[in-house]
Amino acid sequence: MANEISRHILSFVLVLLLLSETVSFDWKKPCKSFVLYQHNIAYDSDNTDNATSATILNPLGLGNFLFGKFVIFDNPVTMDQNYLSKPVARAQGFFFYNKKSYFNIWVACTLVFNSTQHKGTFTIMDANPIMEPTRDLSIVGGTGDFFMTRGIATFKSDLIQGSKYFRLKMDINLYECY
Amino acid sequence: MANEISRHILSFVLVLLLLSETVSFDWKKPCKSFVLYQHNIAYDSDNTDNATSATILNPLGLGNFLFGKFVIFDNPVTMDQNYLSKPVARAQGFFFYNKKSYFNIWVACTLVFNSTQHKGTFTIMDANPIMEPTRDLSIVGGTGDFFMTRGIATFKSDLIQGSKYFRLKMDINLYECY
Amino acid sequence: MANEISRHILSFVLVLLLLSETVSFDWKKPCKSFVLYQHNIAYDSDNTDNATSATILNPLGLGNFLFGKFVIFDNPVTMDQNYLSKPVARAQGFFFYNKKSYFNIWVACTLVFNSTQHKGTFTIMDANPIMEPTRDLSIVGGTGDFFMTRGIATFKSDLIQGSKYFRLKMDINLYECY
Repeated sequence: MANEISRHILSFVLVLLLLSETVSFDWKKPCKSFVLYQHNIAYDSDNTDNATSATILNPLGLGNFLFGKFVIFDNPVTMDQNYLSKPVARAQGFFFYNKKSYFNIWVACTLVFNSTQHKGTFTIMDANPIMEPTRDLSIVGGTGDFFMTRGIATFKSDLIQGSKYFRLKMDINLYECY
Repeated sequence: MANEISRHILSFVLVLLLLSETVSFDWKKPCKSFVLYQHNIAYDSDNTDNATSATILNPLGLGNFLFGKFVIFDNPVTMDQNYLSKPVARAQGFFFYNKKSYFNIWVACTLVFNSTQHKGTFTIMDANPIMEPTRDLSIVGGTGDFFMTRGIATFKSDLIQGSKYFRLKMDINLYECY
Repeated sequence: MANEISRHILSFVLVLLLLSETVSFDWKKPCKSFVLYQHNIAYDSDNTDNATSATILNPLGLGNFLFGKFVIFDNPVTMDQNYLSKPVARAQGFFFYNKKSYFNIWVACTLVFNSTQHKGTFTIMDANPIMEPTRDLSIVGGTGDFFMTRGIATFKSDLIQGSKYFRLKMDINLYECY
């Protein structure tokens, strides 16, 4: 009989929890994980057709590591490393260099999805110490398919071709999915 | 007797839950909803008294859609469409244009409330594709009356008068209220 | 026997709650609190060795309160008021002035910890009305030791030496700790 009552009460509690329509999250494993590649082709005043980013302010001469260089971008984001693959999103935002003694950037950007498969955005904002092999950046909010999401984007410089092109591998791990 | 025990235990569990003093949220309907209007009067070097925003960097010539134009603002926010109504808040932040092929902006701004009725802030940050009739932007944090809030701001370009003035309708929906 | 069953079922419910591996937060008191000091030494083109911040855009002349002045920084953060103390973190980000009629700034910055004791980041973003004795700013995300954190940073201008140096007292209160 104890067992019967247990089952009875537990069902009741579980129903109560379900009825509350609230959400709770498991921080030990992400609720959504995927890998994306971001491609940045710097504008050099002669590549309007291909350019995806442009420097709006040049470095000011404090140290030798581009302190003050400020870049705005609208970069294609693909599922694989080929920058000619069909983009699944655009990465829109800005970054700037902010160190006297080595290359270091700070970035804020939104991944904008606008296809039949995915509609919505999520926004990344953090320091991005580009000399480190990988770095974790905060995902602080989202809309649409990514409504209210939060998580971590792990960036890796996948390929760098001088100041013309870089490809960023982005491991996206969302820990709050609604 | 089973009923009696059930009631007894359930009360206990409920008291436990209450004692934990935690909060949980319902993502299906907002905990706070309101509509605000933001008014932006662009500085033209001849309207210091009225201007509420100013371009700090001009477009750099990548495409024909103002790529690189960077604007800082401190815009009045009202409850109705009249920009002469008593402001309930100021919208402080920046936006910039970032597309080669059509008008598109990226924005970060804080709504600052400082009246007897409301004190506090919340901050919006997202892509803002201004050619779309409405767009959802993330609300990523808040202070004071909006302590730790999160949610969605739906922007609609309510009125645009050339490059001089625009009015933004902002549907605010907060899903986390403390 | 009722007591025995109660205990039995309660343990079961508690185990269930624990197994769900979710987290919940108490918004009435912070899960982590500490005080930090941020030191900003403005670049004057003659102090490269000491400078920790630099103006990348000068005010544009809208009013007399530096509207449009834009500063990028990489400031040392210490546990006490002495800017020569060993930094526990760097504050990396930017701020700009955005008012016609008094001094007011808007800021976004990340506190970057990279020591044996603490590794990780958290990011602050909000209006910062510097004429107020204290002001609350939103902490909107974090990584590493501050994984997914949120909270409030209360800023106080602790010392201001003209336009050369300022020290900011930052009361950090985190309300979501994972």
